[in-house]
Amino acid sequence: MNELKEIVIGFLGCGNVGGGVWRLLENMREEIARRDGLSIRVKKVLVRSVKKVRDCGIPQGLLTDNPDDVLADPEITMVAEFMGGEHPAADYLIRALENGKTVVTANKVALALNWPKLQAAAEKTGAGLYYEASVCGAIPVIGALRGSLESNRISNVMGIINGTTNYILTRMSEQGEDYAAVLADAQRLGLAEPDPTSDVEGFDAAYKLSIMASLAFHTRVPFEKVFHEGITGITAIDIACGREMGYVLKLLAIGKRSGDVVEVRVHPTFLPKDHPLSMVGGSFNAVYLKGHACKEMMLQGRGAGDLPTASAVVGDILEAALTDKHRMPTFSNTEETDSALTFTDNWTTRYFIRLSAVDEPGVLASVAGCFADAGVSIATMMQKGRSDDGRVPLIFITHPAEEKAMQAALRKLDPAICHPENVIRVEE
Amino acid sequence: MNELKEIVIGFLGCGNVGGGVWRLLENMREEIARRDGLSIRVKKVLVRSVKKVRDCGIPQGLLTDNPDDVLADPEITMVAEFMGGEHPAADYLIRALENGKTVVTANKVALALNWPKLQAAAEKTGAGLYYEASVCGAIPVIGALRGSLESNRISNVMGIINGTTNYILTRMSEQGEDYAAVLADAQRLGLAEPDPTSDVEGFDAAYKLSIMASLAFHTRVPFEKVFHEGITGITAIDIACGREMGYVLKLLAIGKRSGDVVEVRVHPTFLPKDHPLSMVGGSFNAVYLKGHACKEMMLQGRGAGDLPTASAVVGDILEAALTDKHRMPTFSNTEETDSALTFTDNWTTRYFIRLSAVDEPGVLASVAGCFADAGVSIATMMQKGRSDDGRVPLIFITHPAEEKAMQAALRKLDPAICHPENVIRVEE
Repeated sequence: MNELKEIVIGFLGCGNVGGGVWRLLENMREEIARRDGLSIRVKKVLVRSVKKVRDCGIPQGLLTDNPDDVLADPEITMVAEFMGGEHPAADYLIRALENGKTVVTANKVALALNWPKLQAAAEKTGAGLYYEASVCGAIPVIGALRGSLESNRISNVMGIINGTTNYILTRMSEQGEDYAAVLADAQRLGLAEPDPTSDVEGFDAAYKLSIMASLAFHTRVPFEKVFHEGITGITAIDIACGREMGYVLKLLAIGKRSGDVVEVRVHPTFLPKDHPLSMVGGSFNAVYLKGHACKEMMLQGRGAGDLPTASAVVGDILEAALTDKHRMPTFSNTEETDSALTFTDNWTTRYFIRLSAVDEPGVLASVAGCFADAGVSIATMMQKGRSDDGRVPLIFITHPAEEKAMQAALRKLDPAICHPENVIRVEE
Repeated sequence: MNELKEIVIGFLGCGNVGGGVWRLLENMREEIARRDGLSIRVKKVLVRSVKKVRDCGIPQGLLTDNPDDVLADPEITMVAEFMGGEHPAADYLIRALENGKTVVTANKVALALNWPKLQAAAEKTGAGLYYEASVCGAIPVIGALRGSLESNRISNVMGIINGTTNYILTRMSEQGEDYAAVLADAQRLGLAEPDPTSDVEGFDAAYKLSIMASLAFHTRVPFEKVFHEGITGITAIDIACGREMGYVLKLLAIGKRSGDVVEVRVHPTFLPKDHPLSMVGGSFNAVYLKGHACKEMMLQGRGAGDLPTASAVVGDILEAALTDKHRMPTFSNTEETDSALTFTDNWTTRYFIRLSAVDEPGVLASVAGCFADAGVSIATMMQKGRSDDGRVPLIFITHPAEEKAMQAALRKLDPAICHPENVIRVEE
């Protein structure tokens, strides 16, 4: 056998994902040597506590609580980061790149919020910046966007990219359970964090969408431009009514580009039940794309978990180790976005509107009038039997309408006769 | 703007795909220049007839019927091939690689049957060998297998990788139509070739499986090792009976590796109706993978068509043009397969068996006895009402059994009392 090329790596962080990467590297050591001619040596692992024993089997002697042991060691040429959160991870990554170390990160927050700085540091020294694991774990969506889809003008990227909320919505949908009960259960099962805010309010999906949309649309899509609304206001009633009308509810991350106008938004969304994304249940993730040449495409798999995420990290480590010239995103990733582009928050979509109305003659005419005045046209209406408080639930699906027209219509409704219980966007 | 790097390309062939590649390169010229700093110039296009006017708009002056104009021109550093078929395409590709030209091919037949020779030629000169378009058009399955899945031990790769047969089976399934009628219709619509043999007999899928399985299992899986059985014997009755039992029929390409034993087979297959591949209808393609780290994954999209295939070809052209060191498959791709591996044709799976039996007491006992004697255990039995000829249709689903045991059981059946109408394998 030829002599192996040794790659000396430092880890930043060692939680579930870091432990998974350690185990996968150990587990694949022989194959990586035989197939790729590489020997990957982890020299130092930055942790908070060097005393805590790690389940994954990392030798205690590799642990350090001094970042310089990783960032300033000239023997370490590659840094793999799984600390999560913006700070201090982003600062460490920038230092690593400035010191010429290639970075492999699973950290969507640090990347989404600091991409231009990271890329500038990488370009200065020629170091590589790899982040397949930052979006949807093992699913090779970053690789596809940077690789074979480069030949496309992508108009749509839509995804179920948060497993926690998909698990919650799938259970609410299948068993008619309430949000709070399912969330509590998901927390017990370790499928939701003790503080679930980042998942259930859509932050997590918005970070990932910012990264995917930047690559898909070849322009920086800053996190701040991504509208996000969570699932905390969703009730089992909404889901049941939607289902009766042929829809499935998902927390969807949506990026669209039409000419020079881009919209990026994360919100609960009704999808037709035969849409490919509607079939993606439980904690699975999936990304659906449309390009002018490739047409429709969907990539589906495990978007989280220690080994699926480690699969992407180790894939990046191997790619980086086997590359002479690191490939950068093919767009000008500066703080400024492409000045020719406009981000709109006045997208056009269909809406599911559930109202609670008093049971009197003329109510329907009044409601319909408010929509018509705002230029919103109704496609379907469903009236459910009278509820216990004597009010009548009215459900509408609109034709495609502008977000602002829709909001204006809602403001026109007379609170004395009806009020909106929920408004949920509908995609085709 | 920085000066562009010019890449001079020759085309081998110019049918639908070649025309699509030309149009896509023209259509993306400005983006490719701006994003990638590249100018792709097609210098010569090898065709059968230089007089035929091409719809795609290739200038007549680029056409040649002399292969040397492409293969021997030192200015041409990259060759893109869309001739299809083994000869003379493979010979041209080998010559191109021997002359140091990087090859981008959409030709599954030439690749599957000549991969070791192609790779040896590439290794000799350091030229690149790219073939994303050879399997499933725009779906980035080759990229995923060569890229982020490199960190996995893949145990399963299963796919619907022939759009023609999926279209036919979907229509037979949804509308209860007969094979011959749907095939004729598909031919009228241009979805099946005038000679449909390669698609409907499973050759096309077997070539593609040979390529995918080689990459997934990191060993050469020769085409000759791939068992293949087509869909010509499938009737609307089989599909309807399977559906009653909760199954959907697909022409499936299946590669499995367990330890050092590999099985590779293409045949009509019943899948549970909630399997992710069961939802893939019409002319869509999809590949389902299982790896020890990534877990389950599915990639779905347009597996054929001029622009989807061109999307993959142009993706490869860009990747090759931006790479300094071409990445080769990380396995020893010689004529010999890995000697530690065994290919088995005695796989274990479940079977759907549809028998036509005489309507007499004791028939069921006799049939069940034949299965039991061969060690095949029955999981489900369904008896349909008597048919017009006074015979009784009996349908069995077996527990997992070895292929050879199953064949032995069928041979034991007494032709005086029953005969098999069809036997279809079942995957979970």
